[in-house]
Amino acid sequence: MASDRYELRRNRLLRRLKKESVDALLVTSEINVRYLTGFSGDSSYLLLGQSLTVLISDSRYTTQISDECPGLDTAIRGMKNTIVDVTAKVARQAKLKKLGFESHITTVADFKTLQEKIKQLELVPVASLVEELRTIKDAHEIGEIREAVRQAERGLEVIRASLVGSATELQVAHDLEHAMRHFGAERAGFDPIVAAGPRAALPHARPGKSRIDSANLLLIDWGSETTSCYRSDLTRVWLTGKISPKVEKIYRVVLNAQRRAISKIRPGARCSEVDAVARKSIGKAGFGKYFGHGLGHGIGLQIHEQPRFSPISEDVLKPGMVVTVEPGIYIPGWGGVRIEDDILVTRNGHEVLTSVPKEFDDAVVAVQ
Amino acid sequence: MASDRYELRRNRLLRRLKKESVDALLVTSEINVRYLTGFSGDSSYLLLGQSLTVLISDSRYTTQISDECPGLDTAIRGMKNTIVDVTAKVARQAKLKKLGFESHITTVADFKTLQEKIKQLELVPVASLVEELRTIKDAHEIGEIREAVRQAERGLEVIRASLVGSATELQVAHDLEHAMRHFGAERAGFDPIVAAGPRAALPHARPGKSRIDSANLLLIDWGSETTSCYRSDLTRVWLTGKISPKVEKIYRVVLNAQRRAISKIRPGARCSEVDAVARKSIGKAGFGKYFGHGLGHGIGLQIHEQPRFSPISEDVLKPGMVVTVEPGIYIPGWGGVRIEDDILVTRNGHEVLTSVPKEFDDAVVAVQ
Repeated sequence: MASDRYELRRNRLLRRLKKESVDALLVTSEINVRYLTGFSGDSSYLLLGQSLTVLISDSRYTTQISDECPGLDTAIRGMKNTIVDVTAKVARQAKLKKLGFESHITTVADFKTLQEKIKQLELVPVASLVEELRTIKDAHEIGEIREAVRQAERGLEVIRASLVGSATELQVAHDLEHAMRHFGAERAGFDPIVAAGPRAALPHARPGKSRIDSANLLLIDWGSETTSCYRSDLTRVWLTGKISPKVEKIYRVVLNAQRRAISKIRPGARCSEVDAVARKSIGKAGFGKYFGHGLGHGIGLQIHEQPRFSPISEDVLKPGMVVTVEPGIYIPGWGGVRIEDDILVTRNGHEVLTSVPKEFDDAVVAVQ
Repeated sequence: MASDRYELRRNRLLRRLKKESVDALLVTSEINVRYLTGFSGDSSYLLLGQSLTVLISDSRYTTQISDECPGLDTAIRGMKNTIVDVTAKVARQAKLKKLGFESHITTVADFKTLQEKIKQLELVPVASLVEELRTIKDAHEIGEIREAVRQAERGLEVIRASLVGSATELQVAHDLEHAMRHFGAERAGFDPIVAAGPRAALPHARPGKSRIDSANLLLIDWGSETTSCYRSDLTRVWLTGKISPKVEKIYRVVLNAQRRAISKIRPGARCSEVDAVARKSIGKAGFGKYFGHGLGHGIGLQIHEQPRFSPISEDVLKPGMVVTVEPGIYIPGWGGVRIEDDILVTRNGHEVLTSVPKEFDDAVVAVQ
């Protein structure tokens, strides 16, 4: 049952919370509230301790909460109370003495208000506890990410089948989101990047009015979001015109670096070392200074989660993590190539969840 | 010129900042950075004082910043520095002594890190200063909101023209966003609410798999977002089947309350009083307990901005504000009616920016 899943997660958090010596944790991150309760609305807090589990929300959500979180205690605020007022009231009634709060989420202003309302309560900063739990995906979450991958891949097939040279980057991006929704997506997992030629040199290009046939290269960085809010994140580059030796060289260097890095993914591997494998590979080929971002990141309820692959990352891979591996070479004024897949860390190694073909020949796409 | 527009806004902020007795303000809200510079990326701060204006960002955005913010000083961090590191360095070099920060945006964790990095600097909480400026829209912003209204209204025309009874709420929601993009929208201004029958009783319903012809009433709450990020926000209810005396009564009560409230919109009007006009009108008709949210809110770069219409609001209307007026009656298990338009406060009164017909007869829509 779905409600068991959330109870299991809350129990894991409660065990972890004992080490923090607080009576309860105030969860203010919308995504963390969702992870721990299944509630998909906003403007709501979860107060979770050994002796209480209360979702604090407002009357717009009463029905939704009873549908999504059957059996969960709630405190519903009226129009004349703020969420902080009600939180303070629940904390007082439960006679809490030390309350943990998510210091990486709570704003300075909300913290001050909370402190004023509950003067007898000690507020203890507790950073990224739920995010830490979230790095290890359970079976349901892995299923959801697989579904997000399926939606994204089927969406791209539609785009490939329907591509015309006169389409603009923006039209392709919008059609891609519409196609993914046709396959059940809630929405795109993030604003898709569709970048022709030199615009592909911008790692975060916004799709614009350039025509697809205005250049020989098209970079698409896209993903889907399922109705349960899990995301996928892929990148492919299509060679849509005359193929220069330079673009072939760069494509093969990026693909080679990506494959080498993926081969290192297993429990216990240091994220900085996986990053270094790709970085060295690109460096040896002479393109080191054109790879200016980290190698990848975790995905899940958010598009960027822990762990992070980068030269300064201290993260270590564990079974159940799902990460992107996405090296790139970006040459200002010319273009960029990035290849990105989603990888599950398994007990013994890894499984590549994405399957869009990426050999050099697969990248050649006729556009008319 | 566009850059003059941002300079004007920064100068207004600098004048306002003098009252706060700080040397500079650290703007960390992405939306506020955009409002003050035109930069449309994320993960960037603006440090603004009488003697410096520096956008702090990373190398992914170098090209985009020079395109979007010509002439603006920047500090671009490398892969091994955090944004807080670079902010601290710029603040030290500028010899700032008292630095204002957006306490309603900055998290407790970031605040602590910043304080550790710049020990000689006094950090002064400054709440909602830029948001306050943003309540008064300039001519460019009003033009953008008009465009967002146009995109939303043309999108709804497509939906009305193409409606079939077998479509689900979700399909209508997705088609609506796709249609608005056809008319130039960046995306929907927020997740559209498309709710049939009893689901319309949930003020924040998520579109689901219910067919449009499964009920006699369809509520659509939607808006568009322009490429410059300005939004519109409208609601209409369509009567798609047999019309009961009850639904006609409720529709007319809501429309009447909305018109009465709109007629009170002018500079100097108190938001609590405008709210009260609609609330009393619905109350007199016997539906008071079924109107459980505030009457409306400002719109602009965000979908919910100041001012707010509610019984406890202390806001007062001023020329240049753009607000929604959206009373509703929600009867659990039966359905809901909400009617929402966007209103500009003018020097002498108001202008209704939205024009989708809303007479009772206009709401009757045949579905087959």
